[in-house]
Amino acid sequence: MIIVLKPEAGKETADEILSDIEACGLKPLHMPGKERVVLGALGDERVLGKLHLENHPMVESVKPILAPYKMVSREFKADDTVVNIGGVPIGGESFMVIAGPCAVESREQMLKTGEAVGKAGASGIRGGAYKPRTSPYSFQGLGLEGLRILREVSEKLGLPTITEVIEVADVEAVEAAASAFQVGARNMQNFRLLSALGEIRKPVVLKRGMAATIQDLLLAAEYIVSKGNPDVIICERGIKTFETAMRNTLDLGAVPYIKAESHLPVMVDPSHGTGIRELVPPMAKAAAACGADGLLIEVHHDPASALSDGKQSLYPGQFEQLMKELEVFVDASGKKLSRPG
Amino acid sequence: MIIVLKPEAGKETADEILSDIEACGLKPLHMPGKERVVLGALGDERVLGKLHLENHPMVESVKPILAPYKMVSREFKADDTVVNIGGVPIGGESFMVIAGPCAVESREQMLKTGEAVGKAGASGIRGGAYKPRTSPYSFQGLGLEGLRILREVSEKLGLPTITEVIEVADVEAVEAAASAFQVGARNMQNFRLLSALGEIRKPVVLKRGMAATIQDLLLAAEYIVSKGNPDVIICERGIKTFETAMRNTLDLGAVPYIKAESHLPVMVDPSHGTGIRELVPPMAKAAAACGADGLLIEVHHDPASALSDGKQSLYPGQFEQLMKELEVFVDASGKKLSRPG
Amino acid sequence: MIIVLKPEAGKETADEILSDIEACGLKPLHMPGKERVVLGALGDERVLGKLHLENHPMVESVKPILAPYKMVSREFKADDTVVNIGGVPIGGESFMVIAGPCAVESREQMLKTGEAVGKAGASGIRGGAYKPRTSPYSFQGLGLEGLRILREVSEKLGLPTITEVIEVADVEAVEAAASAFQVGARNMQNFRLLSALGEIRKPVVLKRGMAATIQDLLLAAEYIVSKGNPDVIICERGIKTFETAMRNTLDLGAVPYIKAESHLPVMVDPSHGTGIRELVPPMAKAAAACGADGLLIEVHHDPASALSDGKQSLYPGQFEQLMKELEVFVDASGKKLSRPG
Amino acid sequence: MIIVLKPEAGKETADEILSDIEACGLKPLHMPGKERVVLGALGDERVLGKLHLENHPMVESVKPILAPYKMVSREFKADDTVVNIGGVPIGGESFMVIAGPCAVESREQMLKTGEAVGKAGASGIRGGAYKPRTSPYSFQGLGLEGLRILREVSEKLGLPTITEVIEVADVEAVEAAASAFQVGARNMQNFRLLSALGEIRKPVVLKRGMAATIQDLLLAAEYIVSKGNPDVIICERGIKTFETAMRNTLDLGAVPYIKAESHLPVMVDPSHGTGIRELVPPMAKAAAACGADGLLIEVHHDPASALSDGKQSLYPGQFEQLMKELEVFVDASGKKLSRPG
Repeated sequence: MIIVLKPEAGKETADEILSDIEACGLKPLHMPGKERVVLGALGDERVLGKLHLENHPMVESVKPILAPYKMVSREFKADDTVVNIGGVPIGGESFMVIAGPCAVESREQMLKTGEAVGKAGASGIRGGAYKPRTSPYSFQGLGLEGLRILREVSEKLGLPTITEVIEVADVEAVEAAASAFQVGARNMQNFRLLSALGEIRKPVVLKRGMAATIQDLLLAAEYIVSKGNPDVIICERGIKTFETAMRNTLDLGAVPYIKAESHLPVMVDPSHGTGIRELVPPMAKAAAACGADGLLIEVHHDPASALSDGKQSLYPGQFEQLMKELEVFVDASGKKLSRPG
Repeated sequence: MIIVLKPEAGKETADEILSDIEACGLKPLHMPGKERVVLGALGDERVLGKLHLENHPMVESVKPILAPYKMVSREFKADDTVVNIGGVPIGGESFMVIAGPCAVESREQMLKTGEAVGKAGASGIRGGAYKPRTSPYSFQGLGLEGLRILREVSEKLGLPTITEVIEVADVEAVEAAASAFQVGARNMQNFRLLSALGEIRKPVVLKRGMAATIQDLLLAAEYIVSKGNPDVIICERGIKTFETAMRNTLDLGAVPYIKAESHLPVMVDPSHGTGIRELVPPMAKAAAACGADGLLIEVHHDPASALSDGKQSLYPGQFEQLMKELEVFVDASGKKLSRPG
Repeated sequence: MIIVLKPEAGKETADEILSDIEACGLKPLHMPGKERVVLGALGDERVLGKLHLENHPMVESVKPILAPYKMVSREFKADDTVVNIGGVPIGGESFMVIAGPCAVESREQMLKTGEAVGKAGASGIRGGAYKPRTSPYSFQGLGLEGLRILREVSEKLGLPTITEVIEVADVEAVEAAASAFQVGARNMQNFRLLSALGEIRKPVVLKRGMAATIQDLLLAAEYIVSKGNPDVIICERGIKTFETAMRNTLDLGAVPYIKAESHLPVMVDPSHGTGIRELVPPMAKAAAACGADGLLIEVHHDPASALSDGKQSLYPGQFEQLMKELEVFVDASGKKLSRPG
Repeated sequence: MIIVLKPEAGKETADEILSDIEACGLKPLHMPGKERVVLGALGDERVLGKLHLENHPMVESVKPILAPYKMVSREFKADDTVVNIGGVPIGGESFMVIAGPCAVESREQMLKTGEAVGKAGASGIRGGAYKPRTSPYSFQGLGLEGLRILREVSEKLGLPTITEVIEVADVEAVEAAASAFQVGARNMQNFRLLSALGEIRKPVVLKRGMAATIQDLLLAAEYIVSKGNPDVIICERGIKTFETAMRNTLDLGAVPYIKAESHLPVMVDPSHGTGIRELVPPMAKAAAACGADGLLIEVHHDPASALSDGKQSLYPGQFEQLMKELEVFVDASGKKLSRPG
């Protein structure tokens, strides 16, 4: 860690901070320049957090040398983590496509859509029972009944499932119903929820928050992993920017960036990332091309009647077409499409 | 609501949608143009939500005429809402300053800081017992012990208190300990929490999410108010932008904008809004000047030792100076500084 | 165009605006609702611009139905525009890769780099003679000498060239030296420059501004096309967002979005789009996968010595490897790599 | 400057870079840590720019210690710069209000508006002769005829004027017609124009670009000052963010931030900063309250007929009211309203 002192800082300030650094077990360094005095601390600087050097009235800035996350980093673990979702691998050389409606609306809807996506080649089904909605007047999900439907359809079709959990109180019920948890963008920094999921042994798909930097995202993953659950899949799903033509700005550059920084698998959700049905297939291919390990795609057997996100949901025929065209992009990226069971 | 059809849409599509609109009890309108067919629906268009017209494959765009929130709007209630926080009014002509540390760290810290801010003219104390922190390795708050300290200090000093609630499970404990709830930026769209607070009769300070538009923010307030709790105070605390010189970009324009759109009181948090101690006093004055109803300011009796946010915490002397200088700005804006009980 | 009146607007306001609409040759529509009066204007609403209805004190909002650009739109011209850059086609089924250093630094550097990229399969060379630099203390380009080198190298290697023009006064010199103009992100809204390029008959690669929406970008292209030059290539090169891990956020979703809205070819610049050498190959493949018509890639024969943008420049060996791997992605997207002359 | 090497960097890399640093006349520092080798360079690190250390394949990151601008910084010149615009001071204790229409539309319009704002207390008039417009189909300004009108009105009313210059070729004509140049947001990084204005001896109001960080903005000012013109006034006018309720997000925190970093005067343009007439007065007061040195406000004698920006232009009566209410905020901030001549 590098600590830059204000121009007006005196020798006592430098001495005080240097001895604090030494007391933490790090090697202190003194670099007196003509314009600024700069101090250094060599070693695992994460222990310096408790000194709160950035608070010091004579400190101009603090520049970390190391990333603030540890267990999720490639430096900590060099080889790719492969996560198993209900028997299907994702990560390493395995590419997994999970598809289904935004929300579980009825048994019939889940069955029809699940059959269609399974037949087209998806190796997992998605569907939300608890829906965080911007307006209190919108459909909020079927809750426990939705979880029950999801489980039934999963068993009937032999496909693993993923569904969103929005509160600690629901963790147990979701764990019983689905093959993996999804943490939505609005809950990426619900640290109580992340910690609870760290104590479970089912995979977690962690979606990037709409205003979250990649560093924030990896620190959120670190919450889960550091509490004991290594099976985290990062999901890029678009961020908020000034551009309003699409629902979000899909930050595909984050995929190779995170893959270089972390050993965790990375999925992409082109449905939320664009918000427009017609843009989902090209962005799904682009995600595979830049090294993603999987896709999360909204499909509905009848998008025009969908209770949420219909505008970004593919028709079954569009999804089937996409799966046919996708394979060459997955192969060219050195991966293989995972198959269920 | 205005519905623009795609160029390729035919007469049957228009007829189908027009009859759906009529079935919802709204007046349908047909506007066949040379380049596009445009449909209209006159009346309380919020009932059209269930038609999901945006999903329709022949619909190009849907343009609402009315705001999606209702009970929090000025159209619904023209006069200013005045909220009472532990006996102190905020809103209308009353301007309330709440100050204190980011986190409750100890009884001594809260007493020292509370005494200092009360003496300087604050009419409420803040302090977090539950701290959402970006890194799992940072101080996470004292929890129940923090709530106990907060309550004791509040009673001893005769000042109302506000503290953050981060989960439904904690609502009861926070209600017992504090005069008002704070919903933090990361929980602005924790709709389960908002709904729970809608069933309580204590005021809620609702902070704007880092990626939340003003419309998102007012819809979050609508969750609380529509469930039965009218005592919501909106808090602008900065948004995420490309500018990194400050911690956030304080969107002060949101203050007069929200005051025009809504009857709810609006506070400003210049501490999180800038992240830099020296910028807090000028931005506090600016907030008063543009019509805010109150301020939420971080003060610590010893910022250099603060366990969180020390860099943006005022020294007691700086806060005292600010309170002296602030009054003329509050007065010139047609308001009066509230005094405790 | 839809015009929503304020709740307090009276009948005279509606009548006045309706007669103004009629006077412009459009069909006026009156839609009196319970909560708002809404007016409509059917026809080519772009003529309404001169009414400035958004200024009217009784107008709440104005909602256009049609896009503000015309000649660059797919509605105006349905089939793909194919642009010819120095004999090489881009657009339609032709995919063109242009590579080279950020800046022309010397004859030797351009020759070495040009030879390397040509051998690897690039069908055009890039290199800036005029460099807009954030700091006045940075290298600003070789100017006319740079143009001379570019032309010589182009002729020697038989490869077309593209170079940036930053001012109307330089248009003639750049036209004489290069096969195509590049308008940089900082000049995307230099409307005087765009208009001047509209009067030339050489292709223009128009880079998206860092804060430009897709609509702003297409309107900038409309400046050039409406002045008489149809040969515009749009270039996505990243936008400014809150994410600081990469230099910019590459908005690849813009590629299929623009391809649907406009007939113009779309290139991607993954070098500026990420700012990090290692991310250029995966994002180049992703660009091809989502339907781009070409790539603009920074390569330097010795990036460590580059006078600008060395950090994002590929080594010749990396570029060669990329070209080998890229072809399958281009083919799978239904295009073919263009070859020079 | 601090240089962090990649984990795989060897001793030779460190030695090579250290000797390069020494060769530049700076003091090199070697800090071998357990996880990374860190190098330092003490002294005026701006000379290191030519080493391009960030390009080095073994360099992980480069962290500057000093700001990249120099002559505009408070460290270079501690006391406030006071600029004289046509006889009226701005900066230090002088607060200047410049008002007028967005564009010069006619002699009558400029006279009527100029008289109104002068009578109300403005000490300068604004009005654009060259208008950069997003669409090629919008009014583009009167050009030379506009400059002629501006000059005539200025002389008749005895008020200094400011007008935008958009290209080097127009600098001479604008210099002859106006008391000060305005560089618009879209030209903040038109470095050729900035350099040309550095060779003139008339003040320049430099508006912040829509995607420009404060550091970018101060570097743009450094272009002008380093070329010889010290009379630069910085203007905050809003930045592009995800919020669409207002035209831009006015970043008032930038005012005290820049005032701390630089000795240059800072103006605020609440008209472009919000885009909504009703928000201009509160934000003008907020600007004064947080320490701005002046305001740039759009006023039109008849906003409903304005050819551009009518929606954000004040009526003369609104401006008069604002000037009456503004004075107490200016006084409370320790400044005085400047009066013409």
